[in-house]
Amino acid sequence: MLHTISVLVDNHFGVLSRISGLFSARGYNIESLCVGVTEDATISRMTVAVHGDERVLEQIVSQLHKLVEVIEVRDLTRERHVERELVLLKVAADADRRTELLEVCTIFRAKVIDMSTDAVIVEVTGSEDKITAFIDMVRPFGIAELARTGKIALSRSLNGHSLKADAAAHGAS
Amino acid sequence: MLHTISVLVDNHFGVLSRISGLFSARGYNIESLCVGVTEDATISRMTVAVHGDERVLEQIVSQLHKLVEVIEVRDLTRERHVERELVLLKVAADADRRTELLEVCTIFRAKVIDMSTDAVIVEVTGSEDKITAFIDMVRPFGIAELARTGKIALSRSLNGHSLKADAAAHGAS
Repeated sequence: MLHTISVLVDNHFGVLSRISGLFSARGYNIESLCVGVTEDATISRMTVAVHGDERVLEQIVSQLHKLVEVIEVRDLTRERHVERELVLLKVAADADRRTELLEVCTIFRAKVIDMSTDAVIVEVTGSEDKITAFIDMVRPFGIAELARTGKIALSRSLNGHSLKADAAAHGAS
Repeated sequence: MLHTISVLVDNHFGVLSRISGLFSARGYNIESLCVGVTEDATISRMTVAVHGDERVLEQIVSQLHKLVEVIEVRDLTRERHVERELVLLKVAADADRRTELLEVCTIFRAKVIDMSTDAVIVEVTGSEDKITAFIDMVRPFGIAELARTGKIALSRSLNGHSLKADAAAHGAS
């Protein structure tokens, strides 16, 4: 099963290395990982997408909780949540094939952000399924390059995951 | 100066931990990092945004080149490129303030992807500047939660950065 783990951490040197090391030490390959600061610059949020065994994952989560830099760990797969991913694609498309490519982009609400005589760079966001379908449609044109962020996610409930409350609780502990 | 480093790596256990460890060992704090598979599932692309000293960064890049899992390293800041980031924001907004919030979203082309009686989740993509401006505009409403992917980037030239050519060269070396 694919899990989406959201981890709030203190924004320190080495936290990323330590956390990704926890996963790899258990033979868990990370499918995607994003890390960026939150609205509080001292706190970062990591979103980790991993496939794998439920029991091993529980061990990893419990080890994550033990790291002093970790403020909160949540498996968002267990609750109602939204997930999105961003992909940039550079597609080889000269004038002859451009119209056809742009039609695919329109259907998937992908946005052209750069164009030259022989290539187009498009931006698309969505769920993993949508992204996969879009890449499949564009592949025949010839993908020169692809960069994807990996997914980020938020719980749909307002109360569940307040950063301020978490940070305050962390500070008090 | 803020650098955007793009690293193509073999999709193996522990690569992420090793690479992020290289940065932190030199006291380089990673501002954001994304890693996800490319169109070739055996190869992942990492995009790392780091602030810092040019000379130290050069040392890190040269160390990255020495890792067997590393196929290519590029400092995209040195060439013409496009950068984008995706942010999900959960904003506290009841019916009274919702219209005002939606107006801000329209101006920034942010998309509402979830709504409840007391909160709205919006998705926005763009450059770092645009994202920062949007977050500043939304902050007064009350940000309950924020997840950002960190930036991804692609070189604008078609020839510069072909994954296939890179992978072939790597295999041959």
